[in-house]
Amino acid sequence: MRPVYLDNNATTRVDPAAVAAMLPFFTEQFGNASSMHAFGASVGGALKTARRQLQELLGAEHDHEIVYTSGGTESDNTAILSALETQVGRSEVITSVVEHPAILALCDWLEKHKGVTVHRIPVDAKGRLDVEAYRKALGPKTAIVSIMWANNETGTLFPVERLAEMAHEAGALFHTDAVQAVGKLPIDLKSTEIDMLSLSGHKLHGPKGIGALYVRKGVRLRPMIRGGHQERGRRAGTENAPAIIGLGKAAELALAHMSDEQTRVKALRDRLEQGLLQRIGNSFVTGDTDHRLPNTANVAFEFIEGEAILLLLNRAGIAASSGSACTSGSLEPSHVLRAMKVPYTAAHGAIRFSFSRENGEEDVDRVLEVMPGIIANLRSLSPFWKDKGAAKAAADTAFNPTYA
Amino acid sequence: MRPVYLDNNATTRVDPAAVAAMLPFFTEQFGNASSMHAFGASVGGALKTARRQLQELLGAEHDHEIVYTSGGTESDNTAILSALETQVGRSEVITSVVEHPAILALCDWLEKHKGVTVHRIPVDAKGRLDVEAYRKALGPKTAIVSIMWANNETGTLFPVERLAEMAHEAGALFHTDAVQAVGKLPIDLKSTEIDMLSLSGHKLHGPKGIGALYVRKGVRLRPMIRGGHQERGRRAGTENAPAIIGLGKAAELALAHMSDEQTRVKALRDRLEQGLLQRIGNSFVTGDTDHRLPNTANVAFEFIEGEAILLLLNRAGIAASSGSACTSGSLEPSHVLRAMKVPYTAAHGAIRFSFSRENGEEDVDRVLEVMPGIIANLRSLSPFWKDKGAAKAAADTAFNPTYA
Ligand SMILES: Cc1ncc(COP(=O)(O)O)c(C=O)c1O
Ligand SMILES: Cc1ncc(COP(=O)(O)O)c(C=O)c1O
Repeated sequence: MRPVYLDNNATTRVDPAAVAAMLPFFTEQFGNASSMHAFGASVGGALKTARRQLQELLGAEHDHEIVYTSGGTESDNTAILSALETQVGRSEVITSVVEHPAILALCDWLEKHKGVTVHRIPVDAKGRLDVEAYRKALGPKTAIVSIMWANNETGTLFPVERLAEMAHEAGALFHTDAVQAVGKLPIDLKSTEIDMLSLSGHKLHGPKGIGALYVRKGVRLRPMIRGGHQERGRRAGTENAPAIIGLGKAAELALAHMSDEQTRVKALRDRLEQGLLQRIGNSFVTGDTDHRLPNTANVAFEFIEGEAILLLLNRAGIAASSGSACTSGSLEPSHVLRAMKVPYTAAHGAIRFSFSRENGEEDVDRVLEVMPGIIANLRSLSPFWKDKGAAKAAADTAFNPTYA
Repeated sequence: MRPVYLDNNATTRVDPAAVAAMLPFFTEQFGNASSMHAFGASVGGALKTARRQLQELLGAEHDHEIVYTSGGTESDNTAILSALETQVGRSEVITSVVEHPAILALCDWLEKHKGVTVHRIPVDAKGRLDVEAYRKALGPKTAIVSIMWANNETGTLFPVERLAEMAHEAGALFHTDAVQAVGKLPIDLKSTEIDMLSLSGHKLHGPKGIGALYVRKGVRLRPMIRGGHQERGRRAGTENAPAIIGLGKAAELALAHMSDEQTRVKALRDRLEQGLLQRIGNSFVTGDTDHRLPNTANVAFEFIEGEAILLLLNRAGIAASSGSACTSGSLEPSHVLRAMKVPYTAAHGAIRFSFSRENGEEDVDRVLEVMPGIIANLRSLSPFWKDKGAAKAAADTAFNPTYA
């Protein structure tokens, strides 16, 4: 049986066409892009094409608004560190409680070691930003706002276009971690006020180890990695030509498949979600179902452990995820579900299914076939299932209940 | 005619065996290394093997002393920034005037914006470090010394083992940028006092966009890129599994070819150098010919422009370089040759030929065949060649002579 991959928010298969685009640049056109000899003769042109492909996916006005980095994490770090340097007299950062660690870990460190004040805006039970709290946090001290476009765990979308306008009214820069949005949603940066945007190649069927930071023309950028003059002096280090070219191809393909993502992929996700809820009691969808990525379903199954579900899914040849891949290994529910105050009895059993254009009906069928048995099996072994009422009460009063 | 690639210090061809090792991890085993499902099942093991392969090449005592980065530049930046944070009460950096911009540009910025005092130790006419000046610069304020193992332009080797001992006597950390040394020289870190070492995959027939920072067990490292817990919390961002695995294979191959590099490759280099000096007057080798990388020849041809030589070599199908690839495009002689006080009339015409195990006798023959004609041709057009004496005098008195 063909294994089923529903963990595309963790990472995606590199599209074979992207691999094919990269290959000549490992062993034939391997020359340094800044050298002028035959071994690098076609690298310059290919890099130009790749930049234009990514520009189109983002709807960026200028191709030089793209700065290549090693991935989403580096892009996120660069945006915030740069703003704190260029926004003289402003030392505050506004972000949300549900950001990726690439933002939150940096903010924690800035707060602890660099005298930066960080406002972490809360979300409601559906994962929606508290816009009033955001408005109040904005002020003459705000250097930069960093709010994600789409949450990696629940797919919840944030109204980044409006949030960017509000940031500008306060004189702050606006950055969005769009690592989960790019390639899944139509994006047209030139019609927004977004100043900076992070993306990561491996989330859109491109290679790992490459990402980009979009920096709107006119917004000053202080490099985080210093050395040679690559990327117009904004990111030093020998250009990773094969990966840039692979990312370009992936961007072109994502644009070509955008309507597929919005319709067919979304329909697959919806069918899975509805099928699971119909077949399995004591389960519900987390996140803002009205404003969500088309590919992401985060379903909480009460009174069992997500890690156990994953293990049994895995045995059935199905790959999914419990919370963000970066925090797996820990038994605490993810910071995202905790911020949404999803009850512990449910947050522990939350599973993220994330689709891509490579999935089909048979993948949904397969999950719907095996999942009811898996859940019933685990629940039959769960002491909390037997005494649901007591478990819920204990979980609701204890911050970190003993059954965790 | 087969083109001749003699620009291996700029970048190398990825070994086809390294590409082959990477390929399955783009489209088959593409799963996140930290996920547990089938799509990433063999990633963990492959990463472990890759780490061991690199460990062996470096002679590191522990495999966890290796932290993967996006390349040499990031490794260099990380080492210095980390030391300034961990070495409490020490705010000085010692480096050399001939380092790569990955060190020097960072140091310039630290000095200008972060209150760091930087000592840039000079070199003599052969590019050798002024060890007395180094000894004097060391003191209770020295946080870290960063001296390259091998210079990228001339191949000159620095006595890093002894320099590391001296740094330790002053209580400072010792870092070496070994981007040009790793894979070209036998290295056994466990028998040295070196605390940190930078390397870059694409300089040793591995992929671009991957590098490593060796951090001796017990030396604290503050991450530069913050986020998830990858690399034991020392470098955040989804692991670039294909590139790490490609680098591992490249490391294994470099070790297997180490004696070839020391003998056959060195012999090719020597034959080229001697052949050029015999055939072409007013030319000489720059750098420390007694302590040099086996693969690098930097030959200065007086009274002509390096860029013109490269252009004609290029037409003859030969790739070489004038100075570091990062600074090409500028007409100033490189900072390395200026630091060595190579006369301007010669520094402008310095060409770097850098070999690898992929070169053969026929490559040397081809250069020896075309180079005398190229030089004679350019000199016949050079006003400075006609009036050598006056040109030399002008160059020796002016910092930036008008003929530049
Ligand atoms: C929302 C979000 N931001 C940032 C990242 C970090 O990207 P990368 O691991 O490619 O550095 C991820 C993925 O892990 C993500 O989902
Ligand atoms: C000595 C030295 N250090 C650092 C680097 C930077 O390496 P990378 O361009 O891979 O970041 C290079 C190569 O460009 C180099 O030759």
